[in-house]
Amino acid sequence: MGESLNGLKRTIMCGELRESNVGQKCVVMGWVQRKRNLGGLVFVDLRDREGILQVVFGEEINKEAFEKADLVKPEYCIAVEGQLVRRQSPNENLPTGMVELKGESIKILSESETPPIYIKEDLDTDEMVRLKYRYLDLRRPDMQKIFITRHKTAKVVRNFLDENGFLELETPMLTKSTPEGARDYIVPSRNYPGMFYALPQSPQLFKQLLMVSGFDKYFQITKCFRDEDLRANRQPEFTQIDMELSFVDMEDVIELNEKLIQKVFKEVANVDVKLPIQRMPYKEAMNKYGSDKPDLRFGMEINDLSDVVRNCDFKVFKDAVENGGSVRAIKVPNSAGMGRKQIDKLTEFVKTYKAKGLAWIAYKEDEIKSPIAKFLKEEEIQGIIDKINAEVGDLILIVADKDSVVLQSLGALRLEMANKLELLKDNSEFRFVWVTEFPLVSYNEEEERYQAEHHPFTMPMEEDIPYLESDPGRVRAEAYDIVLNGEELGGGSIRIHDTTLQEKMFRVLGFTKESAWERFGFLLDAFKFGPPPHGGLAYGFDRMIMFLAGTENIKDVITFPKNQNAFCPLTEAPNVVDDKQLGELGIEKKINEK
Amino acid sequence: MGESLNGLKRTIMCGELRESNVGQKCVVMGWVQRKRNLGGLVFVDLRDREGILQVVFGEEINKEAFEKADLVKPEYCIAVEGQLVRRQSPNENLPTGMVELKGESIKILSESETPPIYIKEDLDTDEMVRLKYRYLDLRRPDMQKIFITRHKTAKVVRNFLDENGFLELETPMLTKSTPEGARDYIVPSRNYPGMFYALPQSPQLFKQLLMVSGFDKYFQITKCFRDEDLRANRQPEFTQIDMELSFVDMEDVIELNEKLIQKVFKEVANVDVKLPIQRMPYKEAMNKYGSDKPDLRFGMEINDLSDVVRNCDFKVFKDAVENGGSVRAIKVPNSAGMGRKQIDKLTEFVKTYKAKGLAWIAYKEDEIKSPIAKFLKEEEIQGIIDKINAEVGDLILIVADKDSVVLQSLGALRLEMANKLELLKDNSEFRFVWVTEFPLVSYNEEEERYQAEHHPFTMPMEEDIPYLESDPGRVRAEAYDIVLNGEELGGGSIRIHDTTLQEKMFRVLGFTKESAWERFGFLLDAFKFGPPPHGGLAYGFDRMIMFLAGTENIKDVITFPKNQNAFCPLTEAPNVVDDKQLGELGIEKKINEK
Repeated sequence: MGESLNGLKRTIMCGELRESNVGQKCVVMGWVQRKRNLGGLVFVDLRDREGILQVVFGEEINKEAFEKADLVKPEYCIAVEGQLVRRQSPNENLPTGMVELKGESIKILSESETPPIYIKEDLDTDEMVRLKYRYLDLRRPDMQKIFITRHKTAKVVRNFLDENGFLELETPMLTKSTPEGARDYIVPSRNYPGMFYALPQSPQLFKQLLMVSGFDKYFQITKCFRDEDLRANRQPEFTQIDMELSFVDMEDVIELNEKLIQKVFKEVANVDVKLPIQRMPYKEAMNKYGSDKPDLRFGMEINDLSDVVRNCDFKVFKDAVENGGSVRAIKVPNSAGMGRKQIDKLTEFVKTYKAKGLAWIAYKEDEIKSPIAKFLKEEEIQGIIDKINAEVGDLILIVADKDSVVLQSLGALRLEMANKLELLKDNSEFRFVWVTEFPLVSYNEEEERYQAEHHPFTMPMEEDIPYLESDPGRVRAEAYDIVLNGEELGGGSIRIHDTTLQEKMFRVLGFTKESAWERFGFLLDAFKFGPPPHGGLAYGFDRMIMFLAGTENIKDVITFPKNQNAFCPLTEAPNVVDDKQLGELGIEKKINEK
Repeated sequence: MGESLNGLKRTIMCGELRESNVGQKCVVMGWVQRKRNLGGLVFVDLRDREGILQVVFGEEINKEAFEKADLVKPEYCIAVEGQLVRRQSPNENLPTGMVELKGESIKILSESETPPIYIKEDLDTDEMVRLKYRYLDLRRPDMQKIFITRHKTAKVVRNFLDENGFLELETPMLTKSTPEGARDYIVPSRNYPGMFYALPQSPQLFKQLLMVSGFDKYFQITKCFRDEDLRANRQPEFTQIDMELSFVDMEDVIELNEKLIQKVFKEVANVDVKLPIQRMPYKEAMNKYGSDKPDLRFGMEINDLSDVVRNCDFKVFKDAVENGGSVRAIKVPNSAGMGRKQIDKLTEFVKTYKAKGLAWIAYKEDEIKSPIAKFLKEEEIQGIIDKINAEVGDLILIVADKDSVVLQSLGALRLEMANKLELLKDNSEFRFVWVTEFPLVSYNEEEERYQAEHHPFTMPMEEDIPYLESDPGRVRAEAYDIVLNGEELGGGSIRIHDTTLQEKMFRVLGFTKESAWERFGFLLDAFKFGPPPHGGLAYGFDRMIMFLAGTENIKDVITFPKNQNAFCPLTEAPNVVDDKQLGELGIEKKINEK
């Protein structure tokens, strides 16, 4: 049975002790990292949230404490009282390495079985084991640091927004499932059996209502939920920094958020973000990087070769241009010597993005090697080389098809090549970019109608409003994403607050007046009563922490995450529920055997 | 169609303008509170989050603006540019009453229909209407103030806990339903059809795991859920300030939280809380106030008359004492003249608390009036008067029964009398008290077993541990509630962290080893690996805001609350869900016709 504290008070944290504390009487408490018995001395490395401290027990310091200290094992929880002294052989790898505590008494607060995972940094253990024993996984110093970073980030964000006149307002968790909400988590109601609440995918509608309410500036750091098939780095519940502002335009939202980003990255990660952050229209991002989330840490931009090859004899190129598509390429540095097998793999790679093939030109010192050389005139090949500004050693990779396929496949290939060449391996750069001028709507060929790219409340750009009904596809939105190193950190838009414009938008999207009301009735109702101009933005908080803490696994930044099947190996959720309880809720199980 | 901002920037909030701003060019934006046309002048009271400003438009100031201003109606959203001037006839009731804005231009940003509720303080409108048009209800200045208070309180709490070494850590929302979790909201899983997550009633188990993880000090301001029949001032989702600390005893938790309470009440409500806060053992609270949440703002304590009347001829009194119960009373000041009808009503009142009747003695100047006087000797009546220290004008109200009935009914009667006498009407006192030494377990007569008063992880008081198995009913817990003006503001306990003691506790509660593991397995597992001594506390955040904002209705402190049936009149949640979606979740509706 563990000893009780019995009024003993900790005076300082293990990791805080320095030379300036030498001579002090201290009481520290924590976990045994390791213990060594060197005959007359027992050394214990004691760990708490702040770090590790060496404690030494000796027969000559205190015999009773020495004997008790010899009983401890890794992960025992103990309290030690003693005097801090200068260490004879300092350990320069440890912040506390200049000092050690002479243990005069020890309490064993609780014992530990041998833990199933090592409590150390950079653990390489099976994920299921880590999640099942998450409470031990979280003891590891690198995990502790991540959650200290998470706490600190939330604090910096909250203080910044508070200083800028925002109110943190909580919106409901038990809300209404939208008719499109197939990915909503739902919650059966006991008061209305057979009816359901939905957990919010975002507080979008509520934050717009709060603007109608005159709260002026709202924010919230809050959980959102999405019941979708989990890809890597998705979790069924995730955290958003959500904000909305009244009486603003896009410039106001961007200006404020640039200051927020600068502050967060400086205070949390000591990274200087230069303002203003670069902006890039959606079209440019797509044309140069084949992505609306361009990674600007390296070049290899996409080049359009269509003009050079539109009249060539290579049918694949010629046809692509003639059919309204294009021929585009990236040049990969120092890769002209790439072997055939590797290039074949790249061809397979672009095929997963629906490209039919991959043409290439290797610009070697002594020759130009290319399987398509035989179809092209010499000046056409030279034209390609000139257009793309290739130099000796470059490998040119070309896709010809309709634009969407060309851009998507080359965009993905660009990232793939950066990985293969390890261009980003030691890169600690933070390259931000605002992507703007998104298309307002896109055409859904299956349903033969336009659909909103963001959501149906997004404001069109003023100069494009005249085309809203005549040519919706060319209308750009007052929407903006903040992209960091090729990942979407956040996004938002200015909202429509005018009912006439909103009704026009619904017509474009093919809603009848009735169907629009069924879906968004309470917001439309609210807009009858003097809604202010407003807009906002939401950040993926988990992703932000991943950047700030330097991890690529979202599970590392969530205390108790779910696995790929949305299952928690620790608590074994989801789990069974009594039929009696289901009955009260007006539901029963009905499992289809497959 | 509303006008667009077109780059116009607000320079200051309406409510912020003072005499020191006179002469400034200002742009303000907000809602029309009212408009008056006095011939050549139009006056608009313009409202934003910070307050109301008078704007004057005149033919001679700017004719175009004057004519446009005359078009506005209440709740139109407008922007006004102009110069701030001193007001000729100041309005001393308004913080901005010394100044007014000379409107040189106006934009009508959006129009408003006539709102269905008045946008003013102290609204007395039907709750259903207020909830349906919540976005308008929230425009009312008193509602705006409440949510500013809520924001500020959260900020003060977070900063205080941050400064004291706490980390804010998020715990899961999609978690495991406990076998006792009949009041859990459940969430069907799509990956595991027929299985369910549960929404947390509190983060209790997770915060204890975080202590095992070595996070040392945790807090979170988080939503919790309870699917129970809604009494007044209950909501299905509510917010908790939750905290847990390692290496602490009860004194540490109380000391820290007293500082927190002092800081919050000072900074948010300018209320001075004197420390240390009074403490009262559970037993004293029950004996004096008939409640574990004593309201100490007034007297009328309960007195035990058993010794005085144990040998009297009044059978009801005599029997109560003989059967192990008691005879107790409160004295109500200035009520000796209370009429028979009123006293009959009080008798009905105590009967709802299972008392069989109510005896009374009216100590009038000229006589002592009492229906039981005939059963009592004169010295017995005098004994009662002496015991309870009654004075002329007092009414003594007496209940005789088993202790639990006597105390509960007199406790409720005490509060009832305070209300009737309007003792608390103009009372702005904040009377805090820690209630301590709660019973660890109570006997459930129906199930013929002991059950935990708080939860099965609560630490028994050290001096009572020897009686844990021999006489569980007398064991007191290391538990503490913070009570304010008769309401529980928060509560917590030191937890058991020793597996031997924990197993003993489970035996007392009648768990088999297997059933304990089925319920709490993952926490018990975690306790095998060096758990630290730990304890914590949780506040009802909504209730705290009710005190700080001075409202008695929990719906006033929640942006979008549910009604008594857990229904949201605004969004109409809960609502229907497609059968197809239910099918994917492995459930179907099954409504019992009643």
